[in-house]
Amino acid sequence: MTTASAPVDERRLQRDLDAIASFTEPGTEGWTRRVFQPAFAESRSFVADAMADAGLDVSLDGAGNIIGVLPGLDAAAPRLVSGSHTDTVAGGGRFDGILGVLGAIEVVRSLRDQGHRLTRDLYVVDFLGEEPNEFGLSCVGSRAIAGTLTAEHLELRDPSGRRLADAFADSGHDPATIAAARWTDPALAFVELHIEQGPVLEAMGKEIGVVDVIAGITRFLATFRGRPDHSGTMPMHLRRDAASAAAESQLALESLAGDGGGVATTGRIDLWPGSMNVVPAVARMWGELRSPDAGWLEGHRRGFADAVRGIGERRQVGAELDWLSATNPTPCTADLQIAIEQASATLGIDTMRLPSGAGHDAVQMAHIAPTAMVFVPSKDGRSHVPEEYTSPAECARGAHVLMQTLIELDRAAVGEGEDGR
Amino acid sequence: MTTASAPVDERRLQRDLDAIASFTEPGTEGWTRRVFQPAFAESRSFVADAMADAGLDVSLDGAGNIIGVLPGLDAAAPRLVSGSHTDTVAGGGRFDGILGVLGAIEVVRSLRDQGHRLTRDLYVVDFLGEEPNEFGLSCVGSRAIAGTLTAEHLELRDPSGRRLADAFADSGHDPATIAAARWTDPALAFVELHIEQGPVLEAMGKEIGVVDVIAGITRFLATFRGRPDHSGTMPMHLRRDAASAAAESQLALESLAGDGGGVATTGRIDLWPGSMNVVPAVARMWGELRSPDAGWLEGHRRGFADAVRGIGERRQVGAELDWLSATNPTPCTADLQIAIEQASATLGIDTMRLPSGAGHDAVQMAHIAPTAMVFVPSKDGRSHVPEEYTSPAECARGAHVLMQTLIELDRAAVGEGEDGR
Repeated sequence: MTTASAPVDERRLQRDLDAIASFTEPGTEGWTRRVFQPAFAESRSFVADAMADAGLDVSLDGAGNIIGVLPGLDAAAPRLVSGSHTDTVAGGGRFDGILGVLGAIEVVRSLRDQGHRLTRDLYVVDFLGEEPNEFGLSCVGSRAIAGTLTAEHLELRDPSGRRLADAFADSGHDPATIAAARWTDPALAFVELHIEQGPVLEAMGKEIGVVDVIAGITRFLATFRGRPDHSGTMPMHLRRDAASAAAESQLALESLAGDGGGVATTGRIDLWPGSMNVVPAVARMWGELRSPDAGWLEGHRRGFADAVRGIGERRQVGAELDWLSATNPTPCTADLQIAIEQASATLGIDTMRLPSGAGHDAVQMAHIAPTAMVFVPSKDGRSHVPEEYTSPAECARGAHVLMQTLIELDRAAVGEGEDGR
Repeated sequence: MTTASAPVDERRLQRDLDAIASFTEPGTEGWTRRVFQPAFAESRSFVADAMADAGLDVSLDGAGNIIGVLPGLDAAAPRLVSGSHTDTVAGGGRFDGILGVLGAIEVVRSLRDQGHRLTRDLYVVDFLGEEPNEFGLSCVGSRAIAGTLTAEHLELRDPSGRRLADAFADSGHDPATIAAARWTDPALAFVELHIEQGPVLEAMGKEIGVVDVIAGITRFLATFRGRPDHSGTMPMHLRRDAASAAAESQLALESLAGDGGGVATTGRIDLWPGSMNVVPAVARMWGELRSPDAGWLEGHRRGFADAVRGIGERRQVGAELDWLSATNPTPCTADLQIAIEQASATLGIDTMRLPSGAGHDAVQMAHIAPTAMVFVPSKDGRSHVPEEYTSPAECARGAHVLMQTLIELDRAAVGEGEDGR
């Protein structure tokens, strides 16, 4: 029989959530703390200090991840891992990723308060740069740990032409040390606490979500090259308008995703030269497709590529489609889903299974460890906006389920699954 | 009978065209010299020096226009006026506007070389900021001279929130002096030399174009306000995607203008927050409609406004349409068209009449003076691009026609048309 742990300290967790919210970029909307920006850099000391205060041995790895280790009684046993990220999108909220880091730190404090020593080491990780950045890449830090951050990724350039490797260097990380961030020791499990970011738990009246699959994400940059003509003297039928080709491609993508098997979004468009009296010569369009279904993703990638090619040909506008990144749908480990459900049952908390439309560091960690996710409700399903909200009680409940899950995994699994997969 | 003047100095004019081309913004494509930018500010001394060297009395008016005066024999006779602008669009060429200023200066030098004293004062003007700028306004300097630059115009803001009045102040012009730039003395004629910027003269094998009407231009900013949702968790059918509304409006505008009675262009689009994993919440779209036909313009303004409203309603996205500026089609003065044709005939140069799809300082000057334009061919009809090209001989031929026209107007019209209209 498993024993229910006592709840975590809801007010202490809330104080940390409030405190990190003060690290935001001046003059931006919402809670904006983007990777490689000064506000993010400043917030790193707060996280490291919170980890150290909780009794973790804190280090910064070669890829900018903050890692806190709670040593267990058996140094040889494969580790338990939890964590998430503390960077945000522009105009984002106070919970996406942040709850998973500060919630895991609160778990460590509560374990100590409750006099519970784990057998295994518990690693708490604040992964660098989970959100998509100016370089078109997400999950930078977890990719480094999982060994999926490639040399090509480091050559990705932001709109100003700066390479991702340069951004690392400018932030005080030697790009040469990134490879050393890769984990080679086996982990028993990675369990990430996160807000749902969608409307399902709220609509279904459930307190905890157990993720069964994380949607695959494919990101693209489509570049259209037309001809910059004077907007007053070039007749409509002789134009090669790059902006019109982009607009048509954008609507084609939206229409393709209308079948409900996934979603697709155009998030950013740049026109050059961007003057009202010049027919746009270059249009760049950044976006993505997501689905829990690998077949849908592959089919719609092809469908979008065909649409872009056809639009370019018809308009006599050059059309290039670069796939910036692609992750397949990631099923969560079945045993860990059951472990979360059992831990919730021990605590008398109601759960449901659901897919995650959002990508997570868990997708990268799944390459090197059995992986699962604990979701808590998001008010009105809103996320990546200032209105993003999960109540203090819901946040604490999620951390409590995480703690109980880790306790039960620590007990039950010694001697099993030691190969790190 | 009129006597043919000798040609202008083709090589001297070309030297000036080459010299001013060196004032461009570092790191930009083509010949970029935008109003209120440092490269433009530096080029102003070059123009003022060239005017002074030609024997003009040079002054800078309260709106930043450079004015060179060649005093005539009869100080009381209404003046002759020529000129154009020396600012460019981003990625623009070496002739648009520039030829009209440097060509007029070359006319002054050639008059002197040929010992020709005019009866009337000849004003040569380098108008400030003819090209559309970040504030969404074109013809800033000529509006000030014509008295059509309003207090509302000075409150227009660029994307950073800076007002046009602030840009004047930052460039060393006291916004309070702008009103004093308005001309109250009558002018006999304003004749502007300009490149065609379209393909007609080249296609028809004509050396000189005589503009019969200048297209009216209406510029707009359409703002769409949707909801910033997480791009992975919000189903397609629940989204309120501002970028999709803008794309649809863009294609609706293009389609409206497909009837051939005018042209329409979307030159710039900004999406907020501009992140790949957030459904765009705000889309701003800048563009314009042009036509020589006032009825077409009015009908298509209404058609576009209806389209924007309908798209906003259907997508549950707020849609605002602001008309930033509107100029009616401007017919050129009939007598002046004939004067240009007669002067060309005197020189044995072939002409044709044609409309101008591009707007010009002439549109503003037409509010206060009889106005006409002399066009020279544009290679391949290209303009607002680095490839913009008119040969040295064609440039000199245009300046020669301008000189002969001014000489004949100076002679023929003394005592006529003195009311300045």
